[in-house]
Amino acid sequence: MAFEVITFGEAMIRLSPPGFRRIEQAKSLDLQVGGAELNTAVAVSRLGHSASWISRLPDNPLGRLVANHAREAGVDTSHVMYSKDERLGLYFLEFGAAPRASSVIYDRKGSAIAAVQPGMVPWAKVFAGSKWFHVTGITPALSASSAAATREAMMAAKAAGVKTSMDLNYRVKLWTTTEAGNCLSDLMQYCDVLITTEEDVEKVFGITGSNYEEVAAKVADKFKLDIVAITLRENPLVWRNTWTGMAYQKGKVYKTRTYEVEIVDRLGAGDSFAAGLIHGLLGGDVQNALDWGVATSAIKHSIPGDFAWVRPEEVEALLKGGGLRISR
Amino acid sequence: MAFEVITFGEAMIRLSPPGFRRIEQAKSLDLQVGGAELNTAVAVSRLGHSASWISRLPDNPLGRLVANHAREAGVDTSHVMYSKDERLGLYFLEFGAAPRASSVIYDRKGSAIAAVQPGMVPWAKVFAGSKWFHVTGITPALSASSAAATREAMMAAKAAGVKTSMDLNYRVKLWTTTEAGNCLSDLMQYCDVLITTEEDVEKVFGITGSNYEEVAAKVADKFKLDIVAITLRENPLVWRNTWTGMAYQKGKVYKTRTYEVEIVDRLGAGDSFAAGLIHGLLGGDVQNALDWGVATSAIKHSIPGDFAWVRPEEVEALLKGGGLRISR
Amino acid sequence: MAFEVITFGEAMIRLSPPGFRRIEQAKSLDLQVGGAELNTAVAVSRLGHSASWISRLPDNPLGRLVANHAREAGVDTSHVMYSKDERLGLYFLEFGAAPRASSVIYDRKGSAIAAVQPGMVPWAKVFAGSKWFHVTGITPALSASSAAATREAMMAAKAAGVKTSMDLNYRVKLWTTTEAGNCLSDLMQYCDVLITTEEDVEKVFGITGSNYEEVAAKVADKFKLDIVAITLRENPLVWRNTWTGMAYQKGKVYKTRTYEVEIVDRLGAGDSFAAGLIHGLLGGDVQNALDWGVATSAIKHSIPGDFAWVRPEEVEALLKGGGLRISR
Amino acid sequence: MAFEVITFGEAMIRLSPPGFRRIEQAKSLDLQVGGAELNTAVAVSRLGHSASWISRLPDNPLGRLVANHAREAGVDTSHVMYSKDERLGLYFLEFGAAPRASSVIYDRKGSAIAAVQPGMVPWAKVFAGSKWFHVTGITPALSASSAAATREAMMAAKAAGVKTSMDLNYRVKLWTTTEAGNCLSDLMQYCDVLITTEEDVEKVFGITGSNYEEVAAKVADKFKLDIVAITLRENPLVWRNTWTGMAYQKGKVYKTRTYEVEIVDRLGAGDSFAAGLIHGLLGGDVQNALDWGVATSAIKHSIPGDFAWVRPEEVEALLKGGGLRISR
Amino acid sequence: MAFEVITFGEAMIRLSPPGFRRIEQAKSLDLQVGGAELNTAVAVSRLGHSASWISRLPDNPLGRLVANHAREAGVDTSHVMYSKDERLGLYFLEFGAAPRASSVIYDRKGSAIAAVQPGMVPWAKVFAGSKWFHVTGITPALSASSAAATREAMMAAKAAGVKTSMDLNYRVKLWTTTEAGNCLSDLMQYCDVLITTEEDVEKVFGITGSNYEEVAAKVADKFKLDIVAITLRENPLVWRNTWTGMAYQKGKVYKTRTYEVEIVDRLGAGDSFAAGLIHGLLGGDVQNALDWGVATSAIKHSIPGDFAWVRPEEVEALLKGGGLRISR
Amino acid sequence: MAFEVITFGEAMIRLSPPGFRRIEQAKSLDLQVGGAELNTAVAVSRLGHSASWISRLPDNPLGRLVANHAREAGVDTSHVMYSKDERLGLYFLEFGAAPRASSVIYDRKGSAIAAVQPGMVPWAKVFAGSKWFHVTGITPALSASSAAATREAMMAAKAAGVKTSMDLNYRVKLWTTTEAGNCLSDLMQYCDVLITTEEDVEKVFGITGSNYEEVAAKVADKFKLDIVAITLRENPLVWRNTWTGMAYQKGKVYKTRTYEVEIVDRLGAGDSFAAGLIHGLLGGDVQNALDWGVATSAIKHSIPGDFAWVRPEEVEALLKGGGLRISR
Repeated sequence: MAFEVITFGEAMIRLSPPGFRRIEQAKSLDLQVGGAELNTAVAVSRLGHSASWISRLPDNPLGRLVANHAREAGVDTSHVMYSKDERLGLYFLEFGAAPRASSVIYDRKGSAIAAVQPGMVPWAKVFAGSKWFHVTGITPALSASSAAATREAMMAAKAAGVKTSMDLNYRVKLWTTTEAGNCLSDLMQYCDVLITTEEDVEKVFGITGSNYEEVAAKVADKFKLDIVAITLRENPLVWRNTWTGMAYQKGKVYKTRTYEVEIVDRLGAGDSFAAGLIHGLLGGDVQNALDWGVATSAIKHSIPGDFAWVRPEEVEALLKGGGLRISR
Repeated sequence: MAFEVITFGEAMIRLSPPGFRRIEQAKSLDLQVGGAELNTAVAVSRLGHSASWISRLPDNPLGRLVANHAREAGVDTSHVMYSKDERLGLYFLEFGAAPRASSVIYDRKGSAIAAVQPGMVPWAKVFAGSKWFHVTGITPALSASSAAATREAMMAAKAAGVKTSMDLNYRVKLWTTTEAGNCLSDLMQYCDVLITTEEDVEKVFGITGSNYEEVAAKVADKFKLDIVAITLRENPLVWRNTWTGMAYQKGKVYKTRTYEVEIVDRLGAGDSFAAGLIHGLLGGDVQNALDWGVATSAIKHSIPGDFAWVRPEEVEALLKGGGLRISR
Repeated sequence: MAFEVITFGEAMIRLSPPGFRRIEQAKSLDLQVGGAELNTAVAVSRLGHSASWISRLPDNPLGRLVANHAREAGVDTSHVMYSKDERLGLYFLEFGAAPRASSVIYDRKGSAIAAVQPGMVPWAKVFAGSKWFHVTGITPALSASSAAATREAMMAAKAAGVKTSMDLNYRVKLWTTTEAGNCLSDLMQYCDVLITTEEDVEKVFGITGSNYEEVAAKVADKFKLDIVAITLRENPLVWRNTWTGMAYQKGKVYKTRTYEVEIVDRLGAGDSFAAGLIHGLLGGDVQNALDWGVATSAIKHSIPGDFAWVRPEEVEALLKGGGLRISR
Repeated sequence: MAFEVITFGEAMIRLSPPGFRRIEQAKSLDLQVGGAELNTAVAVSRLGHSASWISRLPDNPLGRLVANHAREAGVDTSHVMYSKDERLGLYFLEFGAAPRASSVIYDRKGSAIAAVQPGMVPWAKVFAGSKWFHVTGITPALSASSAAATREAMMAAKAAGVKTSMDLNYRVKLWTTTEAGNCLSDLMQYCDVLITTEEDVEKVFGITGSNYEEVAAKVADKFKLDIVAITLRENPLVWRNTWTGMAYQKGKVYKTRTYEVEIVDRLGAGDSFAAGLIHGLLGGDVQNALDWGVATSAIKHSIPGDFAWVRPEEVEALLKGGGLRISR
Repeated sequence: MAFEVITFGEAMIRLSPPGFRRIEQAKSLDLQVGGAELNTAVAVSRLGHSASWISRLPDNPLGRLVANHAREAGVDTSHVMYSKDERLGLYFLEFGAAPRASSVIYDRKGSAIAAVQPGMVPWAKVFAGSKWFHVTGITPALSASSAAATREAMMAAKAAGVKTSMDLNYRVKLWTTTEAGNCLSDLMQYCDVLITTEEDVEKVFGITGSNYEEVAAKVADKFKLDIVAITLRENPLVWRNTWTGMAYQKGKVYKTRTYEVEIVDRLGAGDSFAAGLIHGLLGGDVQNALDWGVATSAIKHSIPGDFAWVRPEEVEALLKGGGLRISR
Repeated sequence: MAFEVITFGEAMIRLSPPGFRRIEQAKSLDLQVGGAELNTAVAVSRLGHSASWISRLPDNPLGRLVANHAREAGVDTSHVMYSKDERLGLYFLEFGAAPRASSVIYDRKGSAIAAVQPGMVPWAKVFAGSKWFHVTGITPALSASSAAATREAMMAAKAAGVKTSMDLNYRVKLWTTTEAGNCLSDLMQYCDVLITTEEDVEKVFGITGSNYEEVAAKVADKFKLDIVAITLRENPLVWRNTWTGMAYQKGKVYKTRTYEVEIVDRLGAGDSFAAGLIHGLLGGDVQNALDWGVATSAIKHSIPGDFAWVRPEEVEALLKGGGLRISR
């Protein structure tokens, strides 16, 4: 069975104390499942596309829980591999309030996906009939073998004529900027669409510019990318941000509306931006892709958990200017 | 036993996922009871008046729960009728955050109150010794028989010398604007005080104006109403609105303070405006009625559930300008 | 894509007050999804078989939530139909304690599945490549059209060479014993395996006997059934029962161990018995089927919700006599 | 307005840690309202009688909450008095499990009801048209003035031709057995029906016997009581007891069924026994009264909180022998 | 064992309904422990100093719970005294939202600490090796004997060469401004550092000025204080305030950054200001002390409960200008 | 500062789904802290002795949370070491019901305590003034270095004249029986009191007997132990067990009462048995020690979490035969 969109990466159980408690104050932890590439697969599925997420999980209740949540949200898990040996990655999330930022403690060492090896996934079979492959800069950061497997996947995608996108997503706790720069620069040759922020481009590729249009252009030129998309957040407060994005293609800059977002949970916002963008690009229109990317992820900020439980009709309504009266 | 204020209409169990979860994410649902006319009866009772709510409920734990909640909040239920045949209406509420509005799914078809028939309620007995009758445009929208029962009630109220108020409350999911216009225009002949918004007046009566004062005047003139009161909300965000209202009587326009409200739960705000207005009008002063209507409902925004668990002393303190320091 | 097991019927959202609260005491309701045929599909899937559940849901968040939960538990929903017009059935569950039994309030009138019509489901396509079709006596009880659709499905299954099982499941709130007897007697001609209790056999078919072996034999003979399986519960208390079952095939009676069960949630126990039985019968061994049916459903009593979140390895361990020490 | 049954006493907010946590482990506390005489008024009301509870509460949200809960459960609060000066009594409840009993910490000193004075309640008006007055040995134990007010109430009831019942309810933390014996022996002259246990009769009146029939007879004779009813509990475990009772009238001993009860919450069980007894005695039949007293209170054990949220139809069904199958 | 910082006062169990429910709506109450001097001891301990809190608690689970929470947060309780006779003070907290302020109901009469007597605490032993003593204007307000004990403590501190600070903290529900003025003016002779607000200085000492610098100077002069620190809050809304402070020493005015705070829980903010100030003054730098006082307490607004679960490294990061991006 | 009792080992955060949910069903996880040696230190402290727990924790909120909980329960943490490098061990607990046992998933690899090295703890200083050292067979099972550190600790204890006890606690997921046998046999030379079960003695030392008295005697003889204590559980159900123990010293067998326990949470029961035993042995009486060990741990079964929140007075009351009536 073929799926329109394939993603590859780690998902973790996310544990967060309710009611703005700090971790030291926790008496219980709310459980969600999240991981950049799974989050994107979920949002792509919610926008109406078939999507399969590829990963490696421990063969225990924790691993199965992650796959269950993926399926609940509409994502295929038939290519997920199970391991008897390793553990599931976890992350602990503490919600903040100004002047204290939210924060994350990763507990992801020794995970089953970090032990993935090239040759484990039948990529040719996976990509047969597929249209899009999405991965982030987190997957190659997990381990040397996962970096090799990521490279293998991207090459296989290109070989199969499948479009590829990467969300740069630099994670300082996983590798150095030098390590990331070396690895990700190499992977750029297999990448059609790069999604990133100004900060990450500077950290990973050392590229700066007087404005984000210039940064996007420089990156696109250097790596011969088809499209570079950048998300833009302003956060004077923790519970209220502005959110927008831009896209660059062949010298042309695309912009869209800026949203004022009341933040319930901003984890996974960038991942749902990728999903909206892919949704639009599957339709072939960069402006529409940017509009959907930003609108989908603006809504994501209002939804608890990493997954974007959106519906295409509400993204459309937002793009048409729907207001904030109670819908009844 | 006579009650100062009588209201007539449906109340439902309201089910909402906690923690800003979307309905698809719900693992549990918070339960509240709400319904426009019951909400007004509750707020009227909390402001110090005796109030009886008239409705029809299924003779099962769900129906009894609704009556229990009404009594808990101080409202008499001795005239409520119980049915063995029909069900209780429900509504599902999803709290939003900008740019996603809150939304409601009604599941109210086939309710016991929709099957109410003229002749079921002993109106003459109910209104003996009473001072005020309040109903909304929702009750007649439930069914043809409930429309007939509403007409019967309003006629009986006028015959008993009881003042009447109606909150127009157009609900697009219950009837068309044409149906609403026909029915409600007819009922206006028995109405002393109309409470509404500019949008509803346009939808139901097709009346517009260059400003709300003009709209209020036109409606009052057309239907020979004593008073027309209009609530005014600005909602640039979901969690923060401004809120005020105006009243029109015999060519005179009344205004009051505009409140900035941090919103915990805005359901039932309009209903508590009606209650504050009735409270003031029972005292005979339109300006005071408008002040109490807006202040009571401004406070309602801070209270979870449809009911306005206010106290008259805190409305008074707000009207006198009380600040936001912790009271201790 | 073909699925080993197909089931067809209604699923509802189940709402129950936590902490043994009565419905009138409810301040929140725990949400689960349940329905006899979906429950069986879930347990069949958990035991390692591919399973697809066929139903009709409203096209709103409540309907989608039901399908999401089915997929989360491993069940395919690709044949589920969505309706713009009808509602989702609900049921309210109140947990009891001796001497007060647990109780259920159904609120399922007007559901999308009750409006299902013959011709809506492409049965020939559904059954291509499938091995088993399971339905209960609830589906034909929902409406005349759902009874016709059930008959259509069973005929199509037989035509496709697919084995069929029915759990008799008489529901007094849905139809009379005469109505049930007429409809279900007719359906028996398409049924291979009947699952039931002594009480239901008497109520629906008017068949009694001096013991359950005799009852099973009489039913099997009358309707030319391959297998009749009967579950047996003794409940001196609400939180503790004994649980076992028997099977009858061609004059031979099969028995298995009796379990003492500490009850967390007995809803869906019978449905998981059907699943264990089907699991075993797909392997061809009646004794094994009965063993798995009773063991799977004994474990189900310890699991909250209607779904049997079991694993085949723990059923096997129980059948091998695993004790009650903490597994660590 | 006249009420069939009048009760008089203290009600407290009850705070208990959920999930069998000990108080030292509490992170939150479940809130219920309870008090012996209010509990009895609630159960009497649930069984179909009008009931008014008389007390004194602080004029603050805690006091109002108590009155709200009484009305929610169907009890009239129009005679409740409010005080600006005193506090509301609280009690903390810790649920145990064998071999650890449940336990209660009272924090009721300085309550508004303890400051009640003779002359505060218009007893003649209260009892006009009423049929029954119920009080317990807790009310006079609160303070000297509340003892005097209790005596005043009982005298007024007798003067008004109203039947009186007292539940002896000795509380060691409130007074000594000598104090209790002196006060309660005096009140017995105004008492028609005494409800108690063997232990309390011995502690308060120093009366013992070779069996409870003899004890009941001795007490009835000594104080010229019409009826003496005794409840009997055996508790080999915390979560499972047996429960029954007996009644003695003019030399005749009445017995009823013994129930095996799975205990959710046994607080208030004795108070609902009193209610069932009063319900039956209002109908004039001692055997029926005892049957209803024990059955109502057997069900109470299954209901969280002090209030008996029963329905007369389920008590009747239990008396007719209803089983423990799920009602659906 | 000697502790750097000693504090002396009452701590209560704080009970607040979750989810912005009003107290009348409470079905459960969240439990925290709080009290001005304990809150300061906690924050001082979290900032890296050893701290011992001295108080008197009832010898029951409620009293032990308070001591347990103190130790959990790092505070020594070896000098806490236990009483068999008195109760624990409680306070009920209702969270508001504009235009409704949060509010507190105290239920602290008759507490064990109010019955503290001079001579009960071995002050000389307590202060041996200690550096700082902190108390607030609440402790002497509890009773005449606690006022005497406070005076005794301050004198002993001065005798031992320990620095003293007092947070004026006028509580209108505990005493009049005249009583407070008389008592606290007398205590100023033993005070080195006064922490207060403009409002309290006016109420307690009758001192006003054209600006807070002038007020601070006047107070410092009148009572010969080393340092006067004033906190400054602007609260146009309940969930968002600005927060800063100033300090005055020997004619010199110190200022620091103003924080915009999103408020999770502002109880205890002033107490953590005192802690940050003490932390800095133990290091000898007034500017640094003010910076730490305001930054520590700005963060406190984001933390549920009265305790400031801060870490010195995050206060430092905030002082260096850390932003609101998610830390990961 | 010297502490009567010293324990050494790992503590983990324990995460368990509430309401008997399976891990795959978890939407939230209740958080507790537990670890055999910490649990014993807590119970020893609750019984009135000063106790210090020695371990190694990560320097992050999770590590601090563990130390906070230890202090909350009365245990000193001044000797706990903090590491920047490793993680905190976790364990996931699923509560069962017959016929499904409760189960545990460990996620403890790579913990800070597993990386402990000989020489890290200043044992001579720790044991100065101390009376008892307790450790279990889990600590040496964590890693080779932790085994070496355990040996170092036991030798130091003996050198300091401190009594030592070991709970054998074989954990199959940590090491083989051969590894355990080799290591623990060696450690026996430093052990005074061995606490164990018949099963563990057979698995670890290969010692069996016709009854537990014989087993105890054989072990005591082989390793020249002063005392061998054995706990005895019968678990026909998950929620109800019987519980007792025995002790053997120099040819004499001690027995005590058998308790029927209603189980809220049996984790940590064995650890609190050790604590009660140590409490008694510190007093010098083996029979008293056994009585306290079994009674303390019988009560532990009724308390959620790993910690035994008992009070010495309630253990005493139980030993004197206290019943199951509500204490009020």
